Amino acid sequence: MTGPDFDDTFRTRLDQLFAWRRDVRHFRRDSLPEGAIDELLDLASHGPSVGNAQPWRFVRVLSPGRRAALAVHADAHKVAAGQAYDDERKALYDRLKLHGLREAPEVLAVLCDEPGAAGQGLGRMTMPETLCWSVIAAIHTLWLAARARGIGMGWVSILDPAAMNALLDVPDDWRFIALLCLGYPADESETPELVRHGWQDRLPAAATRFNR
Amino acid sequence: MTGPDFDDTFRTRLDQLFAWRRDVRHFRRDSLPEGAIDELLDLASHGPSVGNAQPWRFVRVLSPGRRAALAVHADAHKVAAGQAYDDERKALYDRLKLHGLREAPEVLAVLCDEPGAAGQGLGRMTMPETLCWSVIAAIHTLWLAARARGIGMGWVSILDPAAMNALLDVPDDWRFIALLCLGYPADESETPELVRHGWQDRLPAAATRFNR
Repeated sequence: MTGPDFDDTFRTRLDQLFAWRRDVRHFRRDSLPEGAIDELLDLASHGPSVGNAQPWRFVRVLSPGRRAALAVHADAHKVAAGQAYDDERKALYDRLKLHGLREAPEVLAVLCDEPGAAGQGLGRMTMPETLCWSVIAAIHTLWLAARARGIGMGWVSILDPAAMNALLDVPDDWRFIALLCLGYPADESETPELVRHGWQDRLPAAATRFNR
Repeated sequence: MTGPDFDDTFRTRLDQLFAWRRDVRHFRRDSLPEGAIDELLDLASHGPSVGNAQPWRFVRVLSPGRRAALAVHADAHKVAAGQAYDDERKALYDRLKLHGLREAPEVLAVLCDEPGAAGQGLGRMTMPETLCWSVIAAIHTLWLAARARGIGMGWVSILDPAAMNALLDVPDDWRFIALLCLGYPADESETPELVRHGWQDRLPAAATRFNR
């Protein structure tokens, strides 16, 4: 079988997609088109998974009460995590917006169903963490597919994962991975927000590449 | 700032890229173009990372002796992991090719530099595992960028991660994440090899999506 022949025009656009994907925290409030979330989840389900285990479980948060509880929870954890910084960095930290849980039109939680995973254990006997890593690749697929549709995504990790299963009313043995906000971004940039705010620059290539 | 306006033509091709990305274990032996690996790693470095920590460390395995040792190691672990299966499944398992470490023109190891990560701890105080998860997103970016250039990638996880740092001669406090084979695939398919071989089918959407 011969696959699609991707050309230079496509590659140029794909490289722009990588460059313009952002972790979005500022959202417009308008809704996504009908069916957009299902389309994105169809694409995310083409992400790689160890042994084809497909352990991702996507929970669309529709209840306003549940969403409000998630926002309150994340706000409290932002305050708690801020105690670690000294004065100057703390002032910068306090100005960072770290989630759009109140504004984004869609909130998804993503979990890893470790006991329910398919794939007969293939590829994960010595590295069991590859199962949850498969969920990360699905989330990243979702991120890119969304951005190609003009939809921004933000990953919220400033929260207590142990509190999430009860809050989301999902089985205790699913491992919580991520809380995602989706919606149209209030603005677009090729530069990550944390670079623009002086939190953390990009590293030079030489710091991350080695020959052996 | 306004980003690129991705159109339907691009989205159709992107969706094909997701569908035709494969975990490749059968490689042709011809080399990749000069500079291809650096170009792919430039793109991978645009992957998301918690607090912009960029904890990925890429090790290009150039030494023939080191590569041979990795192949012997993976073969031994394939045999060991096979003991878990009963007769019928074991026969199928034995027929699966699980790595192309001898044939692929390029082998990359990927690790997570936990102590050396940038980003001032942002976003990972309650979920420290998000640091290594950032490396997974970089690997997936590399996977897609490679496939758009006709280059296949295979992720090898049937090995002992505790043995890898010495074998790769990298610092002990880098966490081993993945061994990747890269090269032109011997064949292409829209269907995962594990589906074609009857190991594990795709799951129905309803098994992985929930509303709350």
